[in-house]
Amino acid sequence: MSLTKSILEGNRLALARLLTQVENDLTEGHSSLAELFPYTGKAHLIGVTGAPGTGKSSLVNQLALQYRKTTNKKVAIIAVDPSSPFTGGAVLGDRVRMRDLSGDEGVFIRSMASRGSLGGVAQKTASIVQVFDAAGYEIIIIETVGAGQSEVDVARLAHTTVVVEAPGLGDEIQAIKAGILEIADVLVINKADRPGVENTERALRSTLKLGHPVKRVFRHHGKTMAVDAPTTDPHFWIPPIVKTVATEGKGLNELVEAIAKHAAHLDQSGDRVARDRARLQSEMEILLQGALMNRFLEHIPQEQYGELLEKVFSRNISPSEAVKFLLNGNPK
Amino acid sequence: MSLTKSILEGNRLALARLLTQVENDLTEGHSSLAELFPYTGKAHLIGVTGAPGTGKSSLVNQLALQYRKTTNKKVAIIAVDPSSPFTGGAVLGDRVRMRDLSGDEGVFIRSMASRGSLGGVAQKTASIVQVFDAAGYEIIIIETVGAGQSEVDVARLAHTTVVVEAPGLGDEIQAIKAGILEIADVLVINKADRPGVENTERALRSTLKLGHPVKRVFRHHGKTMAVDAPTTDPHFWIPPIVKTVATEGKGLNELVEAIAKHAAHLDQSGDRVARDRARLQSEMEILLQGALMNRFLEHIPQEQYGELLEKVFSRNISPSEAVKFLLNGNPK
Repeated sequence: MSLTKSILEGNRLALARLLTQVENDLTEGHSSLAELFPYTGKAHLIGVTGAPGTGKSSLVNQLALQYRKTTNKKVAIIAVDPSSPFTGGAVLGDRVRMRDLSGDEGVFIRSMASRGSLGGVAQKTASIVQVFDAAGYEIIIIETVGAGQSEVDVARLAHTTVVVEAPGLGDEIQAIKAGILEIADVLVINKADRPGVENTERALRSTLKLGHPVKRVFRHHGKTMAVDAPTTDPHFWIPPIVKTVATEGKGLNELVEAIAKHAAHLDQSGDRVARDRARLQSEMEILLQGALMNRFLEHIPQEQYGELLEKVFSRNISPSEAVKFLLNGNPK
Repeated sequence: MSLTKSILEGNRLALARLLTQVENDLTEGHSSLAELFPYTGKAHLIGVTGAPGTGKSSLVNQLALQYRKTTNKKVAIIAVDPSSPFTGGAVLGDRVRMRDLSGDEGVFIRSMASRGSLGGVAQKTASIVQVFDAAGYEIIIIETVGAGQSEVDVARLAHTTVVVEAPGLGDEIQAIKAGILEIADVLVINKADRPGVENTERALRSTLKLGHPVKRVFRHHGKTMAVDAPTTDPHFWIPPIVKTVATEGKGLNELVEAIAKHAAHLDQSGDRVARDRARLQSEMEILLQGALMNRFLEHIPQEQYGELLEKVFSRNISPSEAVKFLLNGNPK
C-alpha cells in the first residue's frame, strides 16, 4: 500500500515517516505531498506564540486536552523552534508533553528544530500542516518560540493566532514593544493567578484601544497593513482577552470558545478564504523563487560564479552590480 | 555635490537621506549604495539581542556612550524591530535615547520597523550597515527585538553577537530554550543588581559547559553547524559572561573589553574574513533570487498566472506542481 494511502487511512507510522521526509526535504516526500494536497483545506490552524516564560507549552498541551475532551476532533501539535539549530529544547518540551497526552491516538505531536535558511521554517511548517490536514487532523496547533519575523510568518499560516502573555514579565511597555500583539486574534494572559495580572490586562486593553478603531491591523492577501476600520466592517475583529492558569486547567473552555468565535468570524467575513488563498500563493511563490535560483545556478559555470564572488569580496563590485552582471552579462 | 560625496565627507543630512532611500527601497538609493560599496569593510559590527525585559535598549545606549568616552570612533545604532509593522515601539525607544546621546555628532541612531517580506529585514539591515560603514562609523551596533529567525539572520551580519539576559525572567530553562544562546559570542547578564543573578549565571555556565567542548556551534560560510571542537582549535571561542547594570553604567568597560577580545580572536582565527565573505555572498544571492523572480513574472501573462493560482486555490494542483508547470510548461 502506498504511503499516502496509509496516511489517509490513519496509519500513524506512515504519517511519522512522511513528516520526517518532509522535514529533511527528501524527494520522495515531494510526490507524497502533491498526492495528499487535494485532501487538504479542512483543518483549523491555530498559531500560538509568546515570549519565553509565559507558559506557552503548558497552555498548548491543555488546549489540546480540552479539544480532546469536548470534541471528537483529532489534534496535531507542531512545535517550531526557529532559533535553535539543535533539538534540545524541543525534546525537553516533548517529555513534558508525553506525560499529559501520551496514549491518546487522537493526538500527534511533532517538534521541528530548524536548520534551514531564510524562509525555510515557514515553508516546512506549511508542508507539515498540509500532511496533518490531509491525515484528518481537524485542529492543528502551531507553537512558536520567540517574537520575531518567523512568528509573524507562522501567524500568516494560521487561521487564528493566539498570543500568550503572563503577569510580571518585566515592564509592560517592553512586552508590548515586542510587537506581536499586532498579529493576535485572541490574547491569553496565562499564569493569571499571579500578582500583577490586573496591570497586564490594563496594559493590553489600553494598547488594544490605541489600535482601535482608528487604525486596525488587517491581513489582506498575505500582507499585514494598517487600515481605517469602522466597527461595522465585517472584517473588524477586536481580539478578546482570555485569562488562564494552564497548569491547573483553568480558562481553557473560554479559550476554546474564543477560538470558535474567531473561526465563525473568519467564515462570515470571507477572511478564511482570503487567508487560505494568500497562504497558498505565498507558498507557491517561495517554491518558484527557489526553483528559479537553482535553475539559474545550474547554467552558470562554477568558475565564473566564483570569480564574480571574488570581485565582490575584494569590494571591486557591489552585490547588486554582480547580480546585474549575472542577469545581463554587461561587463564592468 | 553628489549624495555619496557628501556622505563620505561626513554630512549627516545626506546620510539620513540615503538611509531613508534605502529603507524605502527607492531606485536612487541603489546607485548610491553601489558607489559607496568600495568604501565599506572597515567597521566592527556588533549585534545585540535578547528577550524583552532584559534592558537591552539601555545597554545599547550605554555601550555607545562607553565607546564615545573611551575611543574617538564614530558609533551607529540600528534598532531593528522585525515583528512590528508600526514604528511605535521604535519611536518610544528613540525618545529615551535622545536624552542620553543627543548633541553628540559622533553618534547616529536609526530605527527600522519592518514592513517587508521574508528576508527583507536582514537585507535592508545589511544595506544600512554598508551606508554607515562607508560613512566612517567604525562601531555599528545592530539591536534586534525578540528571539526568532530574524535575530539569527541579523547575528549572521554581525562580527560579534552579544546576547543579553536578565535575572528573574521566568524559569531559567525557558530562557535557554529560546535558543539564542547558541549564537552568542559574548553573554551579558544585565540588571545584575537584581536578586537571582547567581541562578542566571549558574544556568548560563552549565549550558555553556553542556555545549563545550564536545559540541560547539560553529559558523562556517554563513551556516550554523555543530562540530567537535577541541580547545586548541583557533576557531574555538567560549563566550565570556559579563555582568552589567546598564542604568547605572556599571560593567560597560568590561563589555567593551570582551568585544575587543572577540574582535582580536576573529582576526587571528581568520573568522572575520570568512564571515565577511559569507555575508556578502548571501547578500548577493538574496538579490539574485529576487531579481530572477521579477524577471520571470514579467514574462508570464498575468492571466495565465491567475488561472494557475485558481487551480491551486481549488486544490486541483499542488503548489509544487504549479511551479513545475510554470518552469517546464507540462500540462496536467
